[in-house]
Amino acid sequence: MSDIIKKEDQVLLFLDSRRTYLIKVKKGQDFHTHKGFIHLDDVIGKRYGDRVKSNLGVDFVLLKPTIRDYVMKMVRRTQIIYPKDMALIVLHTGIGPGSKVVEAGTGSGALTSYVAHYVKPDGCVYSYEVREEFVETAKKNIEKAGVLDYVKIKNKDITQGIDEKAVDAVILDLATPWLVVPHAYKALRGGGTFSSFSPTIDQVVKTVEALEEARFVDVETIECLTRRIKVKRDQTRPETFMVGHTGYITFARKTL
Amino acid sequence: MSDIIKKEDQVLLFLDSRRTYLIKVKKGQDFHTHKGFIHLDDVIGKRYGDRVKSNLGVDFVLLKPTIRDYVMKMVRRTQIIYPKDMALIVLHTGIGPGSKVVEAGTGSGALTSYVAHYVKPDGCVYSYEVREEFVETAKKNIEKAGVLDYVKIKNKDITQGIDEKAVDAVILDLATPWLVVPHAYKALRGGGTFSSFSPTIDQVVKTVEALEEARFVDVETIECLTRRIKVKRDQTRPETFMVGHTGYITFARKTL
Amino acid sequence: MSDIIKKEDQVLLFLDSRRTYLIKVKKGQDFHTHKGFIHLDDVIGKRYGDRVKSNLGVDFVLLKPTIRDYVMKMVRRTQIIYPKDMALIVLHTGIGPGSKVVEAGTGSGALTSYVAHYVKPDGCVYSYEVREEFVETAKKNIEKAGVLDYVKIKNKDITQGIDEKAVDAVILDLATPWLVVPHAYKALRGGGTFSSFSPTIDQVVKTVEALEEARFVDVETIECLTRRIKVKRDQTRPETFMVGHTGYITFARKTL
Amino acid sequence: MSDIIKKEDQVLLFLDSRRTYLIKVKKGQDFHTHKGFIHLDDVIGKRYGDRVKSNLGVDFVLLKPTIRDYVMKMVRRTQIIYPKDMALIVLHTGIGPGSKVVEAGTGSGALTSYVAHYVKPDGCVYSYEVREEFVETAKKNIEKAGVLDYVKIKNKDITQGIDEKAVDAVILDLATPWLVVPHAYKALRGGGTFSSFSPTIDQVVKTVEALEEARFVDVETIECLTRRIKVKRDQTRPETFMVGHTGYITFARKTL
Repeated sequence: MSDIIKKEDQVLLFLDSRRTYLIKVKKGQDFHTHKGFIHLDDVIGKRYGDRVKSNLGVDFVLLKPTIRDYVMKMVRRTQIIYPKDMALIVLHTGIGPGSKVVEAGTGSGALTSYVAHYVKPDGCVYSYEVREEFVETAKKNIEKAGVLDYVKIKNKDITQGIDEKAVDAVILDLATPWLVVPHAYKALRGGGTFSSFSPTIDQVVKTVEALEEARFVDVETIECLTRRIKVKRDQTRPETFMVGHTGYITFARKTL
Repeated sequence: MSDIIKKEDQVLLFLDSRRTYLIKVKKGQDFHTHKGFIHLDDVIGKRYGDRVKSNLGVDFVLLKPTIRDYVMKMVRRTQIIYPKDMALIVLHTGIGPGSKVVEAGTGSGALTSYVAHYVKPDGCVYSYEVREEFVETAKKNIEKAGVLDYVKIKNKDITQGIDEKAVDAVILDLATPWLVVPHAYKALRGGGTFSSFSPTIDQVVKTVEALEEARFVDVETIECLTRRIKVKRDQTRPETFMVGHTGYITFARKTL
Repeated sequence: MSDIIKKEDQVLLFLDSRRTYLIKVKKGQDFHTHKGFIHLDDVIGKRYGDRVKSNLGVDFVLLKPTIRDYVMKMVRRTQIIYPKDMALIVLHTGIGPGSKVVEAGTGSGALTSYVAHYVKPDGCVYSYEVREEFVETAKKNIEKAGVLDYVKIKNKDITQGIDEKAVDAVILDLATPWLVVPHAYKALRGGGTFSSFSPTIDQVVKTVEALEEARFVDVETIECLTRRIKVKRDQTRPETFMVGHTGYITFARKTL
Repeated sequence: MSDIIKKEDQVLLFLDSRRTYLIKVKKGQDFHTHKGFIHLDDVIGKRYGDRVKSNLGVDFVLLKPTIRDYVMKMVRRTQIIYPKDMALIVLHTGIGPGSKVVEAGTGSGALTSYVAHYVKPDGCVYSYEVREEFVETAKKNIEKAGVLDYVKIKNKDITQGIDEKAVDAVILDLATPWLVVPHAYKALRGGGTFSSFSPTIDQVVKTVEALEEARFVDVETIECLTRRIKVKRDQTRPETFMVGHTGYITFARKTL
């Protein structure tokens, strides 16, 4: 991986932990912030980790975006799963380099990109999205995250069926996951893993019932809370506000 | 990935979510459980996802172990990080296929294996362990998890220095992470990520102070709680007991 | 309140935070623990806060029991609400000295005693219990807690009706709170408060629906988690295990 | 308690759970809200629980304020403890009708009022406040809450000493609770209870050390999280945002 920033590279401009900007380095252009503007020509040839000054003299750090940065900065037409929940889905489904995964709905492509990042370079994510108008935005987001080569977006209704066979995992983030469970069963290899994210407990109950009817085992539902800590000698304490709920995640494994 | 179980394969024998056994399929041997024993010869030739009966007629499902299964079943000489925390470390450090990672201490090799799973097939984990007596167990655990080709265990004291240069991430799970911070700074590429797991808040304060002195930015400390939900129509509720604390995780990124 | 311990007094024998014993000081008797026995005659005449030695030379502190101690030490034939949830019920219902409260089911009398403690000396708790076999144990527990003068136990089925009128609060801990909602409405004064504790989310949904149908406002459901912190310089951290769920508490206020 | 609203009464005007107004019913005045104004003359003679219409035809419910309402609506010159934490302090200190309590700092009088509510009619809260400018506001707040008869505000520095003897409980919400511990020890009766609320973990460590040096036992530190649940058939879920930290509460009991 080159450490020198070239034109057309994606760069995360970092002011502080709450103010970061994901930009593409275009020759001859300026990027405007509340702390002044930055000549992008000044960025070309610098190294990741270097600083650049705005015209107002404010320092920005030039960072190479991680997959988490891409996901958090995506253009969203829908609410996206939080990265913490994505990370637990990757953990519990056991996917990794080479995995063949079915995922739906594509939405803005955030979860798709996150999963695709880990199945590189030999795996593939088959991502179903029934709403045609989301496909283009998703494709742009996934391309920006650098993982479009590992994704096949399918403009199809996954509640009507899954084309793939013997996949390692089926990962769902949609309103009616229970309707997909029988299709997921057929698509998965023996022992393959199922995962579904849902904001409401009612969706979870229906999904778990469908899983138990369909010869899945190891059915487990969790919720995950993360809390930020303000660390400073003699003033250390958790932050006052936190996200108290994103959704429930249900996992299962297929038996034959 | 073959779906047929061969001799010498690792198999997760699944009775229920709380009773699973990670075994190696040895010809001519039996595996004993409280629910009777299983002839391992009967397992050979079956598919993952199939069931096998013990001599007492109890069904066990034959599952292909995931990296999470390997990590949770490791022979431990030390307390290991929980998988949920490992998943957040992978998320925040941004590592993936091809990443070059320094990690310490190796301990039983659980975190090492988890990280190695995601840097396949071109990346590498350089894992430091000062206690010679841990190295052999760790090596066996990592080999069993199938990722030894992507790990270099080094019987060295990481608080004395890191040999590697331009690494993508430094990941720590040891008693005095603050002593490693200056070495981590030198080892990381510009914009590279740092992560440290510590059970006590006092370790966190010292580590954060060291990071702020050493030109790291985006310093953030979180804790993560997961809660299991018992899902059953008309009886749905969170489980009574949960793990209330594992540790704090601190993240940072290097600036030049 | 006398500080000198007399015979027949209730005393909390304190060894450490996890080992405490609620005893009645009987002349001529011994109390046996794993750390030896204590002559109760030695306790008479001592002051609360004093120490007494067992025959094995181990120190026990003599404490005056609080209402929380009484509640936690009650003979239980049923699962009881945790004190933290009782405290939130007292907070949200706004009861205090002089309040007139209807409560059900009595069960072992723990919640009854806790509420009665705060309505002294002019208030009253009308406690309904349909299961006759619980009434005697409850009465003994409530008497031991010193608040029987402020409680009227009624061996009646509260789902069939409430006798009292113009009460300040109705507090429920039973399996089918939604069946009591219409009776609670009739029993409460205008603006009076309703509170119900339920372990499962399904009970909560039914109760909230009944409240909304019955001209209640300010309907709110919460859950409460408490976590213990191990405090010790340079080793401070939350405890590893915690209670992850006791139940949900629903509150509401009656409009006319 | 009269159910008819008279002039000069305190009334909680309730629009919905997030929009409530604590007002004093003054003859001939109007109360203005975003949903129109209310003639307070129209309120006189109504019952608690009744509705009143604004000039725009919007319904408001007339509620009798609870002690929780008073506390949450207090004019604040300082951050106040959340009611949930107050409720746990009352629980753990074991106070009730008749208790004699020392409390500091008074601040806006919220915790003072809450505690005073429960020691009625024979108990007393001695509330210390070193900052003279807070005393007047606190007195008004406590009077409005109807409990000034049970409170003695003392414009004194509690870190310099406590005048009272043989008190049942000492309750602290101030920046340096550890400086008060030796005075609390002297002021408490044998077995009396100590409680301190602090936002940062560093304050907790110092306070616990002071308690352990001063012959206190049963030293325990907790934190309490409450989460609101949005209850609606087929859409039930916890609320997205919650308060993630208010403070730690430390409890202890005095031995002689």
